[in-house]
Amino acid sequence: MTTQTIRTRRSFVMDEAVAILAQTPATLDALLRGLPDGWIAAHEGGDTWSPFDVVGHLIHGERADWVPRAKIILEHGDTRTFDTFDRFAQFAASEGRTLASLLDEFAMLRQESLRDLAALRLSVAELDRRGRHPAFGVVTLRQLLATWVAHDLDHIMQISRVLARQYSDEVGPWRAYLRIIGGTHG
Amino acid sequence: MTTQTIRTRRSFVMDEAVAILAQTPATLDALLRGLPDGWIAAHEGGDTWSPFDVVGHLIHGERADWVPRAKIILEHGDTRTFDTFDRFAQFAASEGRTLASLLDEFAMLRQESLRDLAALRLSVAELDRRGRHPAFGVVTLRQLLATWVAHDLDHIMQISRVLARQYSDEVGPWRAYLRIIGGTHG
Repeated sequence: MTTQTIRTRRSFVMDEAVAILAQTPATLDALLRGLPDGWIAAHEGGDTWSPFDVVGHLIHGERADWVPRAKIILEHGDTRTFDTFDRFAQFAASEGRTLASLLDEFAMLRQESLRDLAALRLSVAELDRRGRHPAFGVVTLRQLLATWVAHDLDHIMQISRVLARQYSDEVGPWRAYLRIIGGTHG
Repeated sequence: MTTQTIRTRRSFVMDEAVAILAQTPATLDALLRGLPDGWIAAHEGGDTWSPFDVVGHLIHGERADWVPRAKIILEHGDTRTFDTFDRFAQFAASEGRTLASLLDEFAMLRQESLRDLAALRLSVAELDRRGRHPAFGVVTLRQLLATWVAHDLDHIMQISRVLARQYSDEVGPWRAYLRIIGGTHG
């Protein structure tokens, strides 16, 4: 008889976070580059995003969210509220672009972001520095950087789900075994 | 005013399915190779799987599920029920292995599977051939192959989710914005 194992948790460690952040462009490249257009533009209905939209959103995050907010925290602490992040910026910015060019741009920007982050030479103590989020109020630099990691993974998950669901009808009875298709958004 | 867009669906097309199946080893490689051991062994509690377990499960699928079942359909139609797939085979088979060696093995086996599949030179008409699943009864070859694709994506999604949830505490209030952490298994 075994007892229920508590789910694992990890504390934020800069080197580990950077290792995950560094591999996201290659993961998206492997997953998406060269897929037929119909798959790149696939979505889950309504105003849900396609893989193409998601890559544009990640590009905007590199420009406007992660490192820029880290710098605001270091320069202004919680006296300056972060700029609001535009979750829809990619619709105009990606117009007329190819997926390949978006993937290239994301890879380049991520490399720059990680170079900028390294140049900040953050100490463990500095991870406790406080900033001010427009909706949440006080947050820490550690929380911002951990969120950057989880946000990447959230969108890899989203892209996998959007792609898999294109075959919701084609899988027939196997639908019952495929959580990615049978489940609600999650 | 826009009306609700119906979510997109795609019909099974062999070349498209093969394109997705071919890139899964590189996707998993980019996502996992070189991550610290604690991340590779991370899980969601109870008997949920780690990224290490998932890669072992995918290896077992190449050996015992997809192409072997396709061959049973072609040779025996629905007169021979598929062998039951062992969802726990990887726990013994992966013991003592490194993640790197599992990723290498999966890449090699997937390449072989796709070579075998190509050698079958399936016609569109043959995709309607019927087989017998131990739980579902009659299924078609098309459904089997579509499920192979969705199953890959399901496990990429699972691995992303398991990794992201390691930072459930570290993201602080951003938890509210991260569906991957805040959501139920899905």
